[in-house]
Amino acid sequence: MPDFERRIPEGDSRERMVCRDCGHIDYENPKIVAGAVVAHEGRILLCKRAIEPRRGYWTLPAGYLELGETVEEGAKREAFEEAEAAIEIEGMLAVYSISRIGQVQIIYRARFADPANPAFAAGEESEEVRLFDWAEIPWDSLAFPTVRWSLDAWRANPLGALGAPSGNPPDDPRGNRPRMRV
Amino acid sequence: MPDFERRIPEGDSRERMVCRDCGHIDYENPKIVAGAVVAHEGRILLCKRAIEPRRGYWTLPAGYLELGETVEEGAKREAFEEAEAAIEIEGMLAVYSISRIGQVQIIYRARFADPANPAFAAGEESEEVRLFDWAEIPWDSLAFPTVRWSLDAWRANPLGALGAPSGNPPDDPRGNRPRMRV
Repeated sequence: MPDFERRIPEGDSRERMVCRDCGHIDYENPKIVAGAVVAHEGRILLCKRAIEPRRGYWTLPAGYLELGETVEEGAKREAFEEAEAAIEIEGMLAVYSISRIGQVQIIYRARFADPANPAFAAGEESEEVRLFDWAEIPWDSLAFPTVRWSLDAWRANPLGALGAPSGNPPDDPRGNRPRMRV
Repeated sequence: MPDFERRIPEGDSRERMVCRDCGHIDYENPKIVAGAVVAHEGRILLCKRAIEPRRGYWTLPAGYLELGETVEEGAKREAFEEAEAAIEIEGMLAVYSISRIGQVQIIYRARFADPANPAFAAGEESEEVRLFDWAEIPWDSLAFPTVRWSLDAWRANPLGALGAPSGNPPDDPRGNRPRMRV
């Protein structure tokens, strides 16, 4: 079992997690979540989570960026893994800082790669994947606040040129609200 | 000394670095660099690096985002650490993926917090900090390609409302060029 202690390594100015056994320093930097609002004829692709946290709640296809990927590639991979959807990125919709849990979420506006064949299916981490009309969106069953924020950002600009990306809402500039509150 | 091996942990689908001694999994995710083009009366703040890599070359104030920070807070902290400058963020200028080295750079357009007193000085990691007129920018002595990309993005929109953030240039969409080529 790893046995980490929190201390300031030599030459550093911050506490880090250092393994007592081997001296390895585990730099805990914020992680990037890449995701997309994928729309087709005004409907939006949402995934019902098959895994914790927030199993059974609806989310956008999104997940941790991996080494060697661009952010756009990460968003496309997640859409493929979670919704078996091949997508094209249209532009950047939003950048959110969830400082409380060390995440930065970069959310794109996207469409199906082949709009004549908007194919999707539940990937391994999803119970169900659906296209929702705006009026049908299950607002009370969204998995995370940033799903709502992203949908609102999409609603403000569902088509055409994208402006500067949206950020955190004014009442939660640092992403400090508990994860479960939407 | 840490003794890591590369293998796929149980329940994962990718190779990770796993410590042979303690079993700790070192998830190597991309890191976020937060930075700013800080302008004052048309001149731009650049820092001459006092540390490797690219010691002696000029860069924007920028550095790794730390846990617990928003991206904007990280950009402000770096300007304070590297250039002893108190800045205000105006908006997002660019998002670059440097997939080759696992970085995502988020660059803001910024100004001095007190424009009547645009104070700055060399921080610990800088040999020198200067405001440059556009015509004086040391293009042949810039530290990284993204410094040039960011300056070009600023030049395209030095004032007024910011549009969608710039991304990688078309001839390097994945950030695959060697770091030293500018």
